[in-house]
Amino acid sequence: MKAILFDGQLKFLTDYPIPMPQADEALVRVRLAGICNTDLEIIKGYQGFRGVLGHEFVGIVEEVNGGDHQHLIGKRVVGEINCGCGLCDYCRTGLQRHCPSRHTLGIRGKDGALAEYLTLPVNNLFQVRQNIRDEEAVFAEPLAAAFEILDQVHIRPTDMILVLGDGKLGVLVALTLALSPAHVLLAGHHPDKLRVANDQGVATANASDLRAHKSYDIVVEATGSQGGLTVALQHVKPRGTVVLKSTLAVDAEMNLAPVVIDEIRLVGSRCGPFEPSLRALSEKIIRVGPLISGIFGFHRAADAFDMARAKNSLKVLLDFR
Amino acid sequence: MKAILFDGQLKFLTDYPIPMPQADEALVRVRLAGICNTDLEIIKGYQGFRGVLGHEFVGIVEEVNGGDHQHLIGKRVVGEINCGCGLCDYCRTGLQRHCPSRHTLGIRGKDGALAEYLTLPVNNLFQVRQNIRDEEAVFAEPLAAAFEILDQVHIRPTDMILVLGDGKLGVLVALTLALSPAHVLLAGHHPDKLRVANDQGVATANASDLRAHKSYDIVVEATGSQGGLTVALQHVKPRGTVVLKSTLAVDAEMNLAPVVIDEIRLVGSRCGPFEPSLRALSEKIIRVGPLISGIFGFHRAADAFDMARAKNSLKVLLDFR
Repeated sequence: MKAILFDGQLKFLTDYPIPMPQADEALVRVRLAGICNTDLEIIKGYQGFRGVLGHEFVGIVEEVNGGDHQHLIGKRVVGEINCGCGLCDYCRTGLQRHCPSRHTLGIRGKDGALAEYLTLPVNNLFQVRQNIRDEEAVFAEPLAAAFEILDQVHIRPTDMILVLGDGKLGVLVALTLALSPAHVLLAGHHPDKLRVANDQGVATANASDLRAHKSYDIVVEATGSQGGLTVALQHVKPRGTVVLKSTLAVDAEMNLAPVVIDEIRLVGSRCGPFEPSLRALSEKIIRVGPLISGIFGFHRAADAFDMARAKNSLKVLLDFR
Repeated sequence: MKAILFDGQLKFLTDYPIPMPQADEALVRVRLAGICNTDLEIIKGYQGFRGVLGHEFVGIVEEVNGGDHQHLIGKRVVGEINCGCGLCDYCRTGLQRHCPSRHTLGIRGKDGALAEYLTLPVNNLFQVRQNIRDEEAVFAEPLAAAFEILDQVHIRPTDMILVLGDGKLGVLVALTLALSPAHVLLAGHHPDKLRVANDQGVATANASDLRAHKSYDIVVEATGSQGGLTVALQHVKPRGTVVLKSTLAVDAEMNLAPVVIDEIRLVGSRCGPFEPSLRALSEKIIRVGPLISGIFGFHRAADAFDMARAKNSLKVLLDFR
């Protein structure tokens, strides 16, 4: 099958073996898959992953290994990317995303979604309603990651929230936080990207124009750059909350004394819940279409990665339909 | 008066002017004052403070500038070290410790407690019950800083808590956390210091013997060393909490990706509430006497600082009685 592999180098293969679904796994034929910044970080060395990249997808169940779930065949699905052991305390309390021995699609121990086929446990799959187009459903995973913040942090209607970073995750985070009655400001360096959020009612600002006055109750660090946390700490109020969304392959030098002095809460935030994400897509309360910078067929996968790396682009999709 | 000054160099003066209490301030004659690691960090450059060092004290009110509080004269007191403006949102909501324009005794804009006299607003003072000796009352401030954790973090009876660092703050933190029904383990490198906590029922371990299994719900970083956070992140469970207690003058290189991946909460923690601290001292539920490594008269203040810097010592006191 066609597959985009990282084995120390990025490779576009046409003869990669189709994966075999294990017990209680489904074989999913991928329709659309997205390129995430995490994929770009993996290529720089993050997590040391080797295998098929990609963890954002929508596809059709083609085969199920296990008698109980044959009704899924032919269904259009998206999927939770973390595959827990099912037995540990995390898995048994609904936190399979933190299972210590988990595999994670395209990130840890499991071939990913930038290919014609992938496998996932049937329990990881979510059926997609007909009123959600493929080009929307493929955002279910990154949008879930944005919703994770609402799962972790209590947002009060009086909160002033600053989202730093107008990349795809920053824009999705701003759009989800704006579902709350709090005031949300998205700051970035790219007018075109800011406009995507602004068109849906989110206040935006050029990050260079921000003055740091420790005036935000909550600051979300989604810059994907080394200095992001230091900037966030200049904007958050004493006793406020900084949500860390960026994972970086590199170490950064920083001084955490301000965290202690101002008694800041730093909250790391990674993958999130699919249910509210799919609901938001179905109810059209968040429009993800404007985030798509390009859709490429497999024969132009190299161009897709070039566009994904470009500073002025948002989401880039690979089309396996 | 006698005073221990830092003006780029540590100086022991005998002719420093007695401070004048401003409106609604009291002049306090210091009886005992403690040396804190923060004082040692200030000498290395932390916060850029210049002036009389020290913020841990017990003393007698000798004068009050303001008609309403004359009854305080002659009373033995300890004091909240942060002096807020009284007008801002923080001050009006009981968070004067975070007032952006605060002065802090011996740390920021206000001469400190390692002197014969200090001044503080009368509203900052707490009377000390007779059943608390000077040698106990002088711990009111650092013990309050330990209680701050219980104010910030919900401790569940099922929590496994690890306190990293057997310095004076680490020991006090372990003793306060052990008031909860959670399991507390204090880890450090100094058997003599660990014994102080162990004698009061806290489980202890040599830090070199710890195996990092991400098995603690809460890890308190009180090592005062650069690598402390990295170690804490090796011990905390996914979705767990790391409390940062160390303020350091230096930058450290670190990778915060584990915070994001494991969705850790980092909670900075600084000064704390005096009421529970004084109650614990009065009710003798925490015994601080065993933490005293030495008590020095002013003529031996240099020796006091040498002992405070030594790795095997806990609290060192200056006696101005």
